[in-house]
Amino acid sequence: MSSNEQSAEMHPSRWGDPARAQALPAETRGLVEMVFGLEDRPAVPEAPLAAPAIEPTVLAALVDLLGDDHVRTDDDTRRLRTRGKSTPDLVKARTGDLTDAPDAVVRPGNHDEVAAVLALAVEHHLAVVPFGGGTSVTGGLVAARAGFAGVLSLDLVRMKRLVSVDHVSMTATLEPGLRGPEAEALLAAEGVTLGHYPQSWEYASIGGFAATRSSGQSSAGYGRFDALVVGLTVATPRGRVALGSAPANAAGPDLRQLFLGSEGTFGVITAVTVRVRRVPVQKVYEGWRWASFAEGAAAMRALAQSGLLPSVLRLSDEAETAINLADPDAIGGESSAGCLMITGYEGEPAAVEAKRAAVTAVLAGLGGTCVGTEAGEKWSHGRFDAPYLRDSMLDAGVLVETLETATFWSNVERLYADVKTALTASLGDPSIVLCHISHVYETGCSLYFTIAAKEAADPLPQWERAKVAASDAMVAAGATITHHHAVGTDHKPWLAQEIGPLGVSVLRAVKADLDPTGILNPGVLIP
Amino acid sequence: MSSNEQSAEMHPSRWGDPARAQALPAETRGLVEMVFGLEDRPAVPEAPLAAPAIEPTVLAALVDLLGDDHVRTDDDTRRLRTRGKSTPDLVKARTGDLTDAPDAVVRPGNHDEVAAVLALAVEHHLAVVPFGGGTSVTGGLVAARAGFAGVLSLDLVRMKRLVSVDHVSMTATLEPGLRGPEAEALLAAEGVTLGHYPQSWEYASIGGFAATRSSGQSSAGYGRFDALVVGLTVATPRGRVALGSAPANAAGPDLRQLFLGSEGTFGVITAVTVRVRRVPVQKVYEGWRWASFAEGAAAMRALAQSGLLPSVLRLSDEAETAINLADPDAIGGESSAGCLMITGYEGEPAAVEAKRAAVTAVLAGLGGTCVGTEAGEKWSHGRFDAPYLRDSMLDAGVLVETLETATFWSNVERLYADVKTALTASLGDPSIVLCHISHVYETGCSLYFTIAAKEAADPLPQWERAKVAASDAMVAAGATITHHHAVGTDHKPWLAQEIGPLGVSVLRAVKADLDPTGILNPGVLIP
Repeated sequence: MSSNEQSAEMHPSRWGDPARAQALPAETRGLVEMVFGLEDRPAVPEAPLAAPAIEPTVLAALVDLLGDDHVRTDDDTRRLRTRGKSTPDLVKARTGDLTDAPDAVVRPGNHDEVAAVLALAVEHHLAVVPFGGGTSVTGGLVAARAGFAGVLSLDLVRMKRLVSVDHVSMTATLEPGLRGPEAEALLAAEGVTLGHYPQSWEYASIGGFAATRSSGQSSAGYGRFDALVVGLTVATPRGRVALGSAPANAAGPDLRQLFLGSEGTFGVITAVTVRVRRVPVQKVYEGWRWASFAEGAAAMRALAQSGLLPSVLRLSDEAETAINLADPDAIGGESSAGCLMITGYEGEPAAVEAKRAAVTAVLAGLGGTCVGTEAGEKWSHGRFDAPYLRDSMLDAGVLVETLETATFWSNVERLYADVKTALTASLGDPSIVLCHISHVYETGCSLYFTIAAKEAADPLPQWERAKVAASDAMVAAGATITHHHAVGTDHKPWLAQEIGPLGVSVLRAVKADLDPTGILNPGVLIP
Repeated sequence: MSSNEQSAEMHPSRWGDPARAQALPAETRGLVEMVFGLEDRPAVPEAPLAAPAIEPTVLAALVDLLGDDHVRTDDDTRRLRTRGKSTPDLVKARTGDLTDAPDAVVRPGNHDEVAAVLALAVEHHLAVVPFGGGTSVTGGLVAARAGFAGVLSLDLVRMKRLVSVDHVSMTATLEPGLRGPEAEALLAAEGVTLGHYPQSWEYASIGGFAATRSSGQSSAGYGRFDALVVGLTVATPRGRVALGSAPANAAGPDLRQLFLGSEGTFGVITAVTVRVRRVPVQKVYEGWRWASFAEGAAAMRALAQSGLLPSVLRLSDEAETAINLADPDAIGGESSAGCLMITGYEGEPAAVEAKRAAVTAVLAGLGGTCVGTEAGEKWSHGRFDAPYLRDSMLDAGVLVETLETATFWSNVERLYADVKTALTASLGDPSIVLCHISHVYETGCSLYFTIAAKEAADPLPQWERAKVAASDAMVAAGATITHHHAVGTDHKPWLAQEIGPLGVSVLRAVKADLDPTGILNPGVLIP
C-alpha cells in the first residue's frame, strides 16, 4: 500500500484507515464467543474538546512564525493528535475521554522552524509534544500539562524529504516526518531500502523510529533502528546538535546513542542519516514447526550464535501457534500442535539461496520440520493487520494488549514463565496469554506477549493490574522493561529500577542541560 | 605469549618487556640510514621524581583502607605509572621529564574498595587517574594537577578475575585490570574467546578497552569492543551504576554507550560483561595484492556491503606496502608494487572454508591477486611488534608516530589525500607517511597513518605541528578525530569541533552530575 492510499491521520479511538476496519473473521469470532462471550461495545461518538488554553497573543506569534495554515486549534486537528495507540489510549477515547488533547497543533517545515517553535515555547512556557506517526503504545504522546501555559503538538508532517542518498557509502538522510511507507517509496526510487518494518510501519515515522529505538520484523537481517542510524540532527531549546562523523569512532561517549531513545525529551530530531541496503530482488518466507517453544528458541539461539541469521526470524509459543492456526488452511491443513517459526530471506537470489540452504541445514539438524512457504506468506500478508483486529475485539468487549521485554538466552525460560504467570494470574479467567520471539541476538532475544481478556466494566484498572504484575516480573527477572516499545509515561517506574538512581540522575542532568525549562515532552521517559 | 612471561609494567620511556627490545632489523636499518641517516639518541638514565605531594595523614587514611602493600609512593612504582605510550610521552620520558608522575599509586582489590578510594579522593580533593594497561597514546593518563591536593594513580592491577561465564548466552563478566593475554587465557580455559586484539593487546586492559572504545585487528569478524559490551558496572563518586538488562532494549537512551568512551572521567569501570565466541578451531591469514589503494579499498567496501566480511581485513597503501615488503622474503619474492591486503578467517573449519571461498570469489572477481598465506602469516606473527620497532627508531633519532580516523566510504579518498598532504607538508623532508585501512563497516572505514621523520633537536613541537595539521584536516573533511585511540588530552580541541558546543555541554553536564568535584581524570576527554 502506498502512502497516498492511506489516511495519514488516525482517530484516537481506533487504529489506521477506517476503510480498512474489519469485522472479526468468522473463525476468530467463533473462538471469541466460545472463550469470552460476545458483547457489543461500541465507541462513543465524537466527544467535544475543552477550548484551547493557549493565549491568543501566543497563537498569533506562532502564526507569524509558521503561517496561518500551520497553526491549528480546531477540534478535528487536535483530536487526531491526542495520545497514541496503547489499549488504554484507545479505551479512553472510546469512552469519550479526550482530556489529553493538545491545545494547538503546529507544523514547522524545517529545522529552523522547529527551533523557532521551541524558542517561542520556552518564552511562553508551553509544553511541546513532538508528533510523528502517533503510534506510541507507552503513553509517549501524553504531556504532563500541570504548570505549563498550554500544550503544543509539534507535528512533523511537513518534514518528509529524502534529503540525500549516498550510493557509495550506502547511507540516506531522511526527515523525521516520513512514515514507513513514504520513506521506503522514496528510497525505492533510488534502488535502496531501510528494511525497517515494525508492526506500526504503515503509520510510524522515521523520527519516531529513532526517538524510541524501534525494532522491525526484519531486525535479524537489517538490524534494529538504533543500529541503522549513523548520524542525526536535533533541535534543542539550547540550539542544534549534529552528530555522526563516521560509522563508528572512539571520540568519547557515543552521543548518538543518547538521543536515540530520548523520546522527544532532549530535543526534536530533525534529520536522521541511516544505513541502507539495495532493494532485495527476492523475498522468501517460510514456516517451520517445533515440538516446543524451548526447542524452537534453542534453534534460534543456534542460528544467532553461528552467524547464520535469516532476514526474518520469529517463533510463536504453543498458545500463539494454536490461535494463529485456528484457520486450518494456514499451513496446509496440518494440526496446530507445537510451535510455528517463520524464517524470511531477502536479497539477491544467490545470497537468498545460500543463506536459506545453510539455515535449513541447521534447523533440520536440530529437529525442526519445514512446513513450506504457505505459512510464511500468510504471516507476511497479515503482518501489519493486528492493530485492526484489536479494534474489532474491543468492539466485541474483549480487551487486547501487548507488552514486550528482552533478556539473555540463559534467562529466557524463567522470564517467559514469570511474565506469563503474572499476566495469567492478574487477568483471571477468561483470559488468553500468547507469546512470540521476534528479535534475536547472539546473546539473547525479545519476548513479545499478547493478551486477551473479557473486558471489565472499567477496563483501565483491569489492564493496569496486569501491566504492573508483568512489569514487576520483568524487572525482578533482571530483564528490560521494553525491547522496542520505549518508555513513554507507562514504563517510567520500572525504568528507574532498570537503570538505577544514578542512571535516572544522568538522564535528568542531560535534560536539564539541553532543555533547562523542561518544555520538551514533560512527564515522558524521565522518572 | 602467556601473561606470566611478560613484564606487567612498562617503563615510561619504552614499550613492553625490555627482554624483547630489539635492534633495528638489517633491512630496516639500511632503509633508515638511507632516508634519515643514523644517529645514536639514547634515553637518559632514570630521572628522579619530585617528592609526593599528598599529605601523610591522607596517605595514612588510604593505607587504613587498602593496606600498606597497596598504597605506594616509591619512585619506581610512581615512575611506572607515568603517562602512556604516545611518542610525545616516550620522548618526554627519554629526556628525563617525569613531571606527570602521580603522587601515589593505590591498588583497590574490588568495586567497594574503588568506591572507598573515590570517597577519600573527594574528601581530600585528590585527582584520580584510573590505570589499566598504561597504553594510552592520546594523553589519557596525564591528569591536570592544578587545584588538586595531589594525584592518585588508581591501579586496577588487583582486579583480574573472570567473574563468570554464561555458556548459554555466550557472555562473560571480566574485571577491568585483566590485560589482553590474561583475559584470553582465562576465557580459553572455558573454551571461549573475546577475539579483541588491538596492537596494544599484550598490555592493554579490559577496563581500558571499554573506557576508550577500543577496536581490534579482528574487528571485521568480532566487532569493536563497544559492540561486544552488553553490560558494565561503574564506581562513581556518587555511587554505583550497573547497566545491561538485555542485549538491546528501548528503555531510553543507551547509557552503556555513555560510559563506553568516557575514559575514566565519569567513573571507574569495575566490571564488564562482554559477548564471547567459541575459541576458533582454525585460523587462516592470507595476502592479496591490488593495483592501487583505491582498488583495494573498493574491494573492502564490496565485502562489507555484501555481508561477507572475514575476521581480519586490512589494506596497506602503496607506501606502507613497499616498506612492509622491503624484505623480499615477505610474499614469496614478489615485487613490492601495488597494495597488500590481509584477509583472515577464524572459526570452525567448515565455516572458515565457506567464508574464504565466498570472499575469494568476490576479491578475484574485482581484480585482486591472492599471494598466499605467507604474507598473512608474516603479518600475524609480527602484529604486536610495531611499538618495539618504534623504540628502536627513536634510539636511532627517527621520530615514529601513528594517528587514525574514520569516515564514510564516499569520503575516504578525500580524507586520505588531505591527511597525507597535511602530514607530508608539516613534517617536511625527510619524512615517510604510510597508511592502512584496518577496520571496515558497511558505510565506511578507518584510516590509520604511520609517520617517520628525522627527529628535530626538540621533537615535541615538530610532532605537534604535524598532529595539528592532520587533525585539522580530519575535522575539515567531516571525519572523526579518532576511530579507536580515544580522546585523552591530545584530541580535546578537535572533539569540541566534532560534537559541537552542545555535545561538549552534555558531556560536562554528565560529568558534573556523577563527579561533582571533578576528581576523575581531570583534563582528559572533556573540552
